[in-house]
Amino acid sequence: MDKFPKDAQQESLVTLNDSAMMQRCIELALSARGRTAPNPLVGSVIVKDGQIVGEGFHPGAGHPHAEVFALREAGDRAKGATIYVNLEPCNHYGRTPPCSEALVAAGLSKVVVGMVDPDPRVSGGGIERLRQAGIEVAVGVEEEACKQLNEAFIHRILYRRPFGILKYAMTLDGKIATTTGHSAWITGIDARNEVHRTLRGSCDAVIVGGNTVRRDNPHLTSHQTETRNPLRVVMSQSLDLPAEAHVWETVVAPTLVLTEQGASPDFQQLLLKKGVTVVELTGLTPTKAMAYLYEQGLLSVLWECGGTLAARAIAEGAVQKIFAFIAPKIVGGKAAPSPVGDLGLATMTEALTLERVRWRTVGSDCLVEGYLPLVNG
Amino acid sequence: MDKFPKDAQQESLVTLNDSAMMQRCIELALSARGRTAPNPLVGSVIVKDGQIVGEGFHPGAGHPHAEVFALREAGDRAKGATIYVNLEPCNHYGRTPPCSEALVAAGLSKVVVGMVDPDPRVSGGGIERLRQAGIEVAVGVEEEACKQLNEAFIHRILYRRPFGILKYAMTLDGKIATTTGHSAWITGIDARNEVHRTLRGSCDAVIVGGNTVRRDNPHLTSHQTETRNPLRVVMSQSLDLPAEAHVWETVVAPTLVLTEQGASPDFQQLLLKKGVTVVELTGLTPTKAMAYLYEQGLLSVLWECGGTLAARAIAEGAVQKIFAFIAPKIVGGKAAPSPVGDLGLATMTEALTLERVRWRTVGSDCLVEGYLPLVNG
Repeated sequence: MDKFPKDAQQESLVTLNDSAMMQRCIELALSARGRTAPNPLVGSVIVKDGQIVGEGFHPGAGHPHAEVFALREAGDRAKGATIYVNLEPCNHYGRTPPCSEALVAAGLSKVVVGMVDPDPRVSGGGIERLRQAGIEVAVGVEEEACKQLNEAFIHRILYRRPFGILKYAMTLDGKIATTTGHSAWITGIDARNEVHRTLRGSCDAVIVGGNTVRRDNPHLTSHQTETRNPLRVVMSQSLDLPAEAHVWETVVAPTLVLTEQGASPDFQQLLLKKGVTVVELTGLTPTKAMAYLYEQGLLSVLWECGGTLAARAIAEGAVQKIFAFIAPKIVGGKAAPSPVGDLGLATMTEALTLERVRWRTVGSDCLVEGYLPLVNG
Repeated sequence: MDKFPKDAQQESLVTLNDSAMMQRCIELALSARGRTAPNPLVGSVIVKDGQIVGEGFHPGAGHPHAEVFALREAGDRAKGATIYVNLEPCNHYGRTPPCSEALVAAGLSKVVVGMVDPDPRVSGGGIERLRQAGIEVAVGVEEEACKQLNEAFIHRILYRRPFGILKYAMTLDGKIATTTGHSAWITGIDARNEVHRTLRGSCDAVIVGGNTVRRDNPHLTSHQTETRNPLRVVMSQSLDLPAEAHVWETVVAPTLVLTEQGASPDFQQLLLKKGVTVVELTGLTPTKAMAYLYEQGLLSVLWECGGTLAARAIAEGAVQKIFAFIAPKIVGGKAAPSPVGDLGLATMTEALTLERVRWRTVGSDCLVEGYLPLVNG
């Protein structure tokens, strides 16, 4: 250790601390998971003389940004302090004044930023303003983790669409139901909890098709009192749907039905009476659905549909990430449905190979996470 | 450490040593993997004064047992020594004299046995004989590992059938081929090497149906010069098979065609000329095939067939273990084949839940190993 130059030692200690503080920002940001759309998840920590003197996170649209909460808590101690924030501070007047100005006014000496603003039109503006004011700015601490945290927000900004996640559960022989359509349950309780709490609790909407409502009558909620529920979306061209279904119970969670222009006015009336929102689209496709949900300000959408709709969503670029649960059981069935319908791929070499794949066990099941290759920009 | 009683310390050291020596027996036994049928895999180590003085393994039927090779190497040093062997020494006159007598004659003072003989009719006989001769016998060291090593042999002895392993490779959406039948390749090179070298190299036979020969024209070899090849078995009722196929190249590896009584005599002649063995069975089922292969002395059979034959093999109890490779890719296809055809299970609760499941990554793919529940005794 004595041979190790002192400067490098300090450098190393500082870096470690920066990393830990940025992880704390991410932890704070996650307190508002599923509640910030269309805004990103942001957490902030202010450190003075090696002590945390202020913390904050952005609770959601209409509320102040994370830095403002941290500054409030820090008060006068912010002067000469270092602030950590996982996303570049904003530099424009929106519903709140720019954070860059607030940081300058508070007399901070250093700003550590996880990642720059993903919007290429404004990216770097906040950092530039801070540097102009003579504040030291470090960028890119725990950058990958910060990008992962806001992958849905980044996708929304870059592609002007919500981030799509396809989730399914299948047996080890690739079936999502038996030949008779029976599917309860494929995975064990741990995997189902992961879906309900973590996945549904962090997505802004869950989409299914009419078939899933008719066959499985799902609740599509987080099954938790303390966790928020996503918007439940049913895509149905014909509105040939049951009059009674769990998803029509809008006291539990809101439900939106996307249908074709002029589809069954009677059934639309029935739905409206139950508190379900009905929106008619011209040409009901995954693309149209995602465009509508983008306009509504959603960040992330969970596709929990059957194979036919899943295949259309993948083919139309409405799915970016796959969450596949695999249960170690064999059910068989030549006609038993599998998770993805026709994609028009004739040879195995054309298969869509997932990127950044992660395999892990959840209870007795396996969860595979991965990203579809980018088809279009 | 000083407070730790000395006796217990020694006990602990001895136990550790026993375990390590038994692991060495297993390692030695595996030298003959895939070559011993119908005999088990057995390795043996002789230890005198903390030194290994003799080692041996059973190379296959007709050769001496593992203990004999170890005794030969140890010579006079066997007197008063301890011998380790993963399977109870035999006590009957077969092609070789009983090992129990050889151990007694060599003047060994202790015998450490991994597991007793699985045949309930003779189980414990060898151990009993050794104890009668005043030799100390310890049983059950690394017992689970010893049972795992000889799971095929144990199954053969208990159920009078070869041990059946179903191997398949599928995409993350449960397809073993595209809608057009194209399947090369689903998994990456590491997974394929695992199949070729480890799986095919350690099984006595590989079975496919006529469809697989027609569609995929597989080699079904270990693709290795130094590893032995399994017997390649084609099950075909009609013998509606191509005249030219890799599996008819019997210079590479032996091939057996199992067919129905009286099926296409002309094609049978063609096969015989190519050096293929043809056997007619009355009622060609997985059960009949396994009964025939049992009579031929096989320990383990690898089912590498399509979904229809796989389902029949499972339903008839001809499969005990599943080796499923899952590639992180999506290919889609409502009519694309999946690994297991009809099992007649109507609800998900009837699904066959695998036991002792192990998930691990092999290159970019995942390998799932597990055992089917015991349906019949």
